[in-house]
Amino acid sequence: MTDQPITVLISHPMLGPMQAGLEAAGYRVVRRWDLAEADRGAVRAIAHAGEIVLEPAFLETLPNLSLIATISVGYDGVDVPWCRARGIEVTHADGLNAEDVADHAVGLLLASWRNLVEGDRLVRSGGWAAEHRLGARPALRGRKVGIVGLGHIGQACARRVEAFGMEAAWWGPNPKPEAPWPQAASLLALAQASDILIVACRADASNRGLISAEILDALGPRGLLINVARGSVVDEDALIAALKDKRLGRAALDVFWQEPTPAARWEGVPNTVLSPHAAGGTLDSIPKMIGQAHENLRRHFAGEPLLSPVP
Amino acid sequence: MTDQPITVLISHPMLGPMQAGLEAAGYRVVRRWDLAEADRGAVRAIAHAGEIVLEPAFLETLPNLSLIATISVGYDGVDVPWCRARGIEVTHADGLNAEDVADHAVGLLLASWRNLVEGDRLVRSGGWAAEHRLGARPALRGRKVGIVGLGHIGQACARRVEAFGMEAAWWGPNPKPEAPWPQAASLLALAQASDILIVACRADASNRGLISAEILDALGPRGLLINVARGSVVDEDALIAALKDKRLGRAALDVFWQEPTPAARWEGVPNTVLSPHAAGGTLDSIPKMIGQAHENLRRHFAGEPLLSPVP
Repeated sequence: MTDQPITVLISHPMLGPMQAGLEAAGYRVVRRWDLAEADRGAVRAIAHAGEIVLEPAFLETLPNLSLIATISVGYDGVDVPWCRARGIEVTHADGLNAEDVADHAVGLLLASWRNLVEGDRLVRSGGWAAEHRLGARPALRGRKVGIVGLGHIGQACARRVEAFGMEAAWWGPNPKPEAPWPQAASLLALAQASDILIVACRADASNRGLISAEILDALGPRGLLINVARGSVVDEDALIAALKDKRLGRAALDVFWQEPTPAARWEGVPNTVLSPHAAGGTLDSIPKMIGQAHENLRRHFAGEPLLSPVP
Repeated sequence: MTDQPITVLISHPMLGPMQAGLEAAGYRVVRRWDLAEADRGAVRAIAHAGEIVLEPAFLETLPNLSLIATISVGYDGVDVPWCRARGIEVTHADGLNAEDVADHAVGLLLASWRNLVEGDRLVRSGGWAAEHRLGARPALRGRKVGIVGLGHIGQACARRVEAFGMEAAWWGPNPKPEAPWPQAASLLALAQASDILIVACRADASNRGLISAEILDALGPRGLLINVARGSVVDEDALIAALKDKRLGRAALDVFWQEPTPAARWEGVPNTVLSPHAAGGTLDSIPKMIGQAHENLRRHFAGEPLLSPVP
């Protein structure tokens, strides 16, 4: 570090715990939620959680900003073309928590399919009677799982569901000749052929609302939708309508249009398991992701090639 | 069938839905919960759910009983030596739902480890705040899973957890030289070496309370106990005490000492996921298990060797 410490802005209180580590590494830390007007000119980098929107109007008030280091894999809250046009580099965590996200996705799958949340509620409420066990559900063996997006997370999901005797297929915009699972001709064809659809793709402007009413109807009244990607990829209004109308069987969601999602939005929406965007953060993945952001900061200010720029 | 139909007793209202099928197969059906005194002599077989206790004092009132056909895999409610001494044969379902039970066991594992029940409650209560995501948990990759009892269910659990990057080991009273997973020297050694212990053994008089306070302490404050076998295998009072004292980290239970388990018993017991003995019953397994009981009834009264007598 130089004598004059480099100032890094933390973009959201969620990342507050990073402050001590950044200061230990020699940075001066300022925080967006109590940022002094006089400090704007000093900010040279932002430590960021990629799903939080960083408005260009705010970034324009930081004339010396040259790096946004997102701790997360996703960076959908960052307008990358806008940043590039202004010489601001953007980095992210590169697949470091794919196994964790896949664990969570399959956990949501099992929790939904086997009524684990509802069952827990039943036992604790004293509603469990021997005469009526929970309504039996189909077995998982032989069910067809469609994976939307065969990146690190999608592949990790495919390996897991196969161990349960489920069959994996996938769809994505690009062919992957080396993938051992069949690629569907289209997303619609994948949804039609699937009992369970796992959304595991990267979110960007091109795939907002990709999981539309038509796709949900193709998945159908016995189908289960799982989303561990980003809320924006699923048409959430259409999803809620399909669940209420029983055109879609079930949904298990870790991500939402708005986070935290308003509790009232899910009142009366049947057959849902909801999770507070918790798939990727484990005690093992978080330090690795933070470490990668630190390394990107170091390289950027040392003039070395970045470790994990966004593609 | 003969002109005089054979009378089969259904032992519990849970099995009420079997009545139509038995009658369609030509049996006369009577039901324990409204059994006329005059019908006791006619009963020649019982269609039974193996976890329900069939008291010898009751069986003694059925002088012509010669078969107890349990629909379930377990038959812990039947005193098999007592029955054998009186010439009463006992059959069960032979491993037909092992894959379903393993699905449920791994579902409980993920639901507990990734806080899925608690997370759902948090989102629905409006308690999810961006500032405090759910407390991060360790990753599952690399965790050690100890399996108590390497039968059909235990093996199906081992195959599943390996797909998550967990390491499986097991303990059981008999060596299994062909098993691809290491056998621990003792149950205590298995618990000491495990992050997660899955109880998947057959329950009988010899293993009541096998998972004792000592075993739970060996599993320890970060450990997770899963039970999909029978409640009797775990010392449930010791389990509740260990969870309250934080000597054991977590438990996810599908089976209990008393079923339905009283809701009040679990008030204030932290870090538990409870499930109403739902692991084995799926729309795929139940018809197969009922079909096997029908076939055992048919063979018994035709004088043919039974399909699946208890060992």
